[in-house]
Amino acid sequence: MSQAENPFISLAAPWIAGLTPYVPGKPVSELERELGIRDSVKLASNENPLGPGLRAREAMTALLSELGRYPDGAGFELRRTLADYHGLSPAAVTLGNGSNDVLDLIARVFLQPETESVFSEHAFAVYPLAIQSVGARARMAQACDFGHDLTAMAALVTDATRVVWIANPNNPTGTWLAAGPLKSFIGSLPKRCIVVVDEAYTEYVADPEFPNATHWVETFPNLIVTRTFSKAHGLAALRIGYALSDPRIADLLNRVRQPFNVNALGQVAATAAINDREHVRASVELNQAGMKQLTTAFARLGLSYIPSVGNFVTVDCGRPAAPLNDALLKRGVIVRPLANYGMPNHLRISIGLESENARFIAAFEDVLA
Amino acid sequence: MSQAENPFISLAAPWIAGLTPYVPGKPVSELERELGIRDSVKLASNENPLGPGLRAREAMTALLSELGRYPDGAGFELRRTLADYHGLSPAAVTLGNGSNDVLDLIARVFLQPETESVFSEHAFAVYPLAIQSVGARARMAQACDFGHDLTAMAALVTDATRVVWIANPNNPTGTWLAAGPLKSFIGSLPKRCIVVVDEAYTEYVADPEFPNATHWVETFPNLIVTRTFSKAHGLAALRIGYALSDPRIADLLNRVRQPFNVNALGQVAATAAINDREHVRASVELNQAGMKQLTTAFARLGLSYIPSVGNFVTVDCGRPAAPLNDALLKRGVIVRPLANYGMPNHLRISIGLESENARFIAAFEDVLA
Repeated sequence: MSQAENPFISLAAPWIAGLTPYVPGKPVSELERELGIRDSVKLASNENPLGPGLRAREAMTALLSELGRYPDGAGFELRRTLADYHGLSPAAVTLGNGSNDVLDLIARVFLQPETESVFSEHAFAVYPLAIQSVGARARMAQACDFGHDLTAMAALVTDATRVVWIANPNNPTGTWLAAGPLKSFIGSLPKRCIVVVDEAYTEYVADPEFPNATHWVETFPNLIVTRTFSKAHGLAALRIGYALSDPRIADLLNRVRQPFNVNALGQVAATAAINDREHVRASVELNQAGMKQLTTAFARLGLSYIPSVGNFVTVDCGRPAAPLNDALLKRGVIVRPLANYGMPNHLRISIGLESENARFIAAFEDVLA
Repeated sequence: MSQAENPFISLAAPWIAGLTPYVPGKPVSELERELGIRDSVKLASNENPLGPGLRAREAMTALLSELGRYPDGAGFELRRTLADYHGLSPAAVTLGNGSNDVLDLIARVFLQPETESVFSEHAFAVYPLAIQSVGARARMAQACDFGHDLTAMAALVTDATRVVWIANPNNPTGTWLAAGPLKSFIGSLPKRCIVVVDEAYTEYVADPEFPNATHWVETFPNLIVTRTFSKAHGLAALRIGYALSDPRIADLLNRVRQPFNVNALGQVAATAAINDREHVRASVELNQAGMKQLTTAFARLGLSYIPSVGNFVTVDCGRPAAPLNDALLKRGVIVRPLANYGMPNHLRISIGLESENARFIAAFEDVLA
């Protein structure tokens, strides 16, 4: 809605006018009804096709009789468990309603009008949204080979810069930064500049050069590392994410956090899931096999793709992807077009079960022909 | 932490320094361990002692195999069901991670530094927190007999006022405003001033003079009514609240809303619960009996209490309540002291099962003696 259509914009904070209203996507059931299809396959949201592991499921079942009670507002058990897992203090942990919530808290604490924030082209869409929602100035660095260009990002840092966002690996491109360059970059930033390293997909990466930035939290007081239970832990439905940082940063984030922001089932599920290494291992193995299945098909079809270390892969269709996406939808295959990421010829495919990947490959061959 | 203890405050938006950091409360299990008690009774959070009804529980069970999937970001089914229930359009509904989230969205859209917001003494604590978290100026009207004084509130409205908050009934006092005065008050406000009527406890109120402000949403474009599933619907653990408003207001709130702010189990539970009138009826009846049980005991003990229409009652201990609260805790009874609401002699007791209320009454008699 424009201001002409919505006079209430004049009552809102000035930057609200520039925000794109959230466009309600249709749930799969509704889409199937509209298109007259059934048994569609959804490979669009980088979800874990195995869902949560047994430990998390058992923990949730045990809590089903307690749903009339508020969640623990402090997330006592979950924060203690995460702190133990990472070898940090519970005071270093900030819980979020998904890591999106934590990213939003960071923006609300450290950004405001007259401040600036730096992110990369083709990076996760929530960064510019979080920046704009508090009226700060978003500065986008050009990407290099679809990945973060740290030199370009450093060049955009000014006296007004308060937050720099890095996704490692990045969604939707699956690109990643090695330990050496990333650590140097963080160390080179002014201390008044918060740097966020978003590690949502970290469990999927096997390369020995890939960093674990949580190990640097005690080295860099201006570093915030975010993690999620929505990917390798298979708990996207329940919205659990967290930040690790200097406890003095966590103190500020917790001032803005809503006290009951993480629901009770999510808390017990995450507490059980963080130490369920077997389920993460199984999820990662399934992902590696599916990645091979998809990239082999792309090679056979003569299509290039961006090498990805995540649970998704982005393919260059060599022509506008929107009509291909429409044709896939009609065949009951839901993937993610990337025009809003400045990549109109690309489609992002989340890696599913072997049978789901095969459904996509067959439909993709069909629509390309 | 003060600024001396936390130098990072200088990096934050100026109003963050004035926010009280969230003090992590201990979960019941932790409290029991520390105090060496067992089988404690919690009557502290205005929860429904029956928990969710059968319909909501069945809906959640059916979704347990889908927890690897993200929630429907648009809340399609839930918004449609709520719209039907209230006789409004789905475009009038904004979903929140509890109604706390909706209150926060309202502050983020309509308040900013240089604007003001009016609420009442003894009103729900989230209003001033939401105001302060965006750097606006909080103006508190004096209460009258522990309830909202609409004349005093109107007197605080200035050209800078953007949001006025009203809880009806109010928590923690249980006081309420009748339809006539409330409707007149809303109509008397300048149109540029948003008025929020928070109806979290509405299902518990039987008085024919008690208004349903959702009926006024189409009359007053500056009215936002909030509701929750945490009280009569027994779903506090899962965090589901919503706002009803002019769709142009909802458009603005949805610009700031995180797309997956309501978890998937909460969505299906609420969709089932809104039409489970039998469970709400049973919850309300249990509450009426428990209210009588508690107030009869207070009368017998010679203590006055604030007449309440909610699922809680606030008693005047006639002396500082903190030592009494400590003594109750040692007896395994958890209630809510109200010093932070400016009511140091009062305790708020949430109404529980008959046996829980009896445990409290016996312990209370004991500690008063």
